[in-house]
Amino acid sequence: MILDGRQLANKIKNQLANKIKLLDRHPGLGIILVGDRPDSKIYIRMKKKACLKVGIKNFDVSLSKDVDKETLIDEIEKMNKNGNIDAILIQLPLPKHLNEREILSKVDIKKDVDGFHCENVGNLTLNNGNFNAPCTPCGCIKILDHYGIKIQGKNVVVIGRSNIVGLPLSLLFLHRNATVTICHSKTKNLFEHTKKADILIVACGKPQFIKKEHVKKNVVILDIGINKIPFDNKKGYKLVGDVNYDSVLDKTLAITPVPGGVGPMTIAMLLKKTFFLSQTVTNPLSTMISTSNKSNNV
Amino acid sequence: MILDGRQLANKIKNQLANKIKLLDRHPGLGIILVGDRPDSKIYIRMKKKACLKVGIKNFDVSLSKDVDKETLIDEIEKMNKNGNIDAILIQLPLPKHLNEREILSKVDIKKDVDGFHCENVGNLTLNNGNFNAPCTPCGCIKILDHYGIKIQGKNVVVIGRSNIVGLPLSLLFLHRNATVTICHSKTKNLFEHTKKADILIVACGKPQFIKKEHVKKNVVILDIGINKIPFDNKKGYKLVGDVNYDSVLDKTLAITPVPGGVGPMTIAMLLKKTFFLSQTVTNPLSTMISTSNKSNNV
Repeated sequence: MILDGRQLANKIKNQLANKIKLLDRHPGLGIILVGDRPDSKIYIRMKKKACLKVGIKNFDVSLSKDVDKETLIDEIEKMNKNGNIDAILIQLPLPKHLNEREILSKVDIKKDVDGFHCENVGNLTLNNGNFNAPCTPCGCIKILDHYGIKIQGKNVVVIGRSNIVGLPLSLLFLHRNATVTICHSKTKNLFEHTKKADILIVACGKPQFIKKEHVKKNVVILDIGINKIPFDNKKGYKLVGDVNYDSVLDKTLAITPVPGGVGPMTIAMLLKKTFFLSQTVTNPLSTMISTSNKSNNV
Repeated sequence: MILDGRQLANKIKNQLANKIKLLDRHPGLGIILVGDRPDSKIYIRMKKKACLKVGIKNFDVSLSKDVDKETLIDEIEKMNKNGNIDAILIQLPLPKHLNEREILSKVDIKKDVDGFHCENVGNLTLNNGNFNAPCTPCGCIKILDHYGIKIQGKNVVVIGRSNIVGLPLSLLFLHRNATVTICHSKTKNLFEHTKKADILIVACGKPQFIKKEHVKKNVVILDIGINKIPFDNKKGYKLVGDVNYDSVLDKTLAITPVPGGVGPMTIAMLLKKTFFLSQTVTNPLSTMISTSNKSNNV
C-alpha cells in the first residue's frame, strides 16, 4: 500500500477551501524569513502558494541575514498584535547569530502554528489536551489514521530525535499507546532496532539509508527524508528519501513515497492548523490531531 | 554492585549541610499539602525532616481535602511572593476536584523545584540548558554517574511513562545519548524489550514484577517501585520494589535495592535543588543534572 500524501493533502486542502470560502473573515498566516537561503525561499514559496489556494491570507516579512535580534523580535511582536494574523511561522533555520529558542519563545502561544514554543512543547510532552504539535509529526499521524493503520501497541522505531520531527513525533506515538524506541547518531547496532519495528520512521537525513535487509516483513514505513542526489550521469538530480524505496517496497505493508508522501502533508497541516487557530482565538488548538484513535476524519 | 542510594544521599546531604551553614540566609522550601492521605503525610514528614537536617527552612501549609481552587492558588501565590521561600513543593496527588495541571502551572517557574511546570517540561524536552527535571529522574541519573555507569549509546528500556518518573527520565536518558525505549501498560511482548536492555528502569507499580528470566546478563537495573506486601504470615509487611531483587541479583552488573536505592536519592535531589534555586534567584536551575557526562560530582 502506498501512503499517498499528495492525494490526502489535496483532499484536506479542498475541504479547507470549502470551509474558508464561507467565512466572513479569512484566516491570516504571518511568515517571517530571515536571510536568503535558497531552500528556505523554496519552502516559503510553496507555503504561500498553498495558502492562496485555500483562501488563507499571507502577511510576509523578509529580513536581511544580518538583522539584529531586536528588529526581528519587533516584527514578531507586531504580528502578535495584528488581529488579521491568526498564525505565525518563522522559517528555520535562522542565521547563527540569532538564538532560535529565544526567538521562537517570542511568538504568542495562541499563534504558534508550528508548535515550537516551549510551553506548547511542554503540553505536547504532558499530552495536555490543548497543544499544538509541529506540522510534520501531525502529518505523519494523520496519514496513518487516514489509511486505517493502527498505532496502539505497535513497536514504533523513530530514527532521528530533532525538535521538529523525531522527538515530537515520538511523543505523539507514545500518547497513542505505541511502544516507542528513539534512535539517533549515537545508537549502537541501529539495525537491530529497525528490524523490530512494526512502524519505522526514518528522519536521519541520509539518502536511501534504509534497505530491505534492515526491516522486517510487513513493516509500515514513513520516510521523512528529502535528499537531492545526482541522476542520469550527473546531468540532473532527483529527490529521494532516507529509505531505499525500491529495495524495501516488497517487504512493506505500507510506505510513504518521496516525493509525494510526508512532504505535502506537512504543508496541509500548516494550512489546517492556521484555520483552526483562526477559529479558536482565545485558546491554543483544540486537539486537531486526536491523541485517541476515535476519529479518522482528515 | 549494589547502587547504594542511602549512602550517596547521605553524602549529598552532608555536603549540602556544610555549604548551607556558611550562608547568611538559609534556603526555604514551601510545602503545600491538600487533604490527609496517610502516604502523602508520611512523604511530607520525611521531606521536612531531611530539610531540617541540612538547614533548609520549611514553610508548610495544610489545606483540607475539600479546599476550593481559589484558596489553594492564593496560598501558592503567597509563596511565590515570599522572599524567604526559594522552592515550592505541592504534594501530589491532589484531590480529584482540583485540576493538577492548572494548579501546578501557578507555581513561579523560578521556584518550581519539582519541575512539573509546563514550561520546565518543555525545556526538559528540548534539552534547553536551564531546566529543572523532577526529583526522582534526577536521582536516577545522579546515582548512575556516581557509580561511573556510562549512559551514552546504551539501550535503556523504561517501563512506565508517568509525568513524574518514566517520561522525564526517558528524556534525560535521551539527552545523554542513550537509545531509549518507553514501555507501558499497552506494550505487547514487554519481556522482548526488557531482555534487550543494558539499563532497565522499572516504574510500573507491580510488586516484584521483573524476574531473572526477563533480563539479560550484566544488566543495570534501577527499581523505582515501592510496594508494601504482607510478610511473616501476614503478621507484618515489608517494602519491595517492582523487581524481584533476589531473583535478578546474580544476573545484574548493578542494581538499586528497595528500600535504600532510588527513594533516598529523590529526597536528596529535592534538597539539592532547593539549595540551587536559593543560589540562582533570577534564573531557573543551571543544569544541576549535567546533560553531558563531564562531571561526576555528587
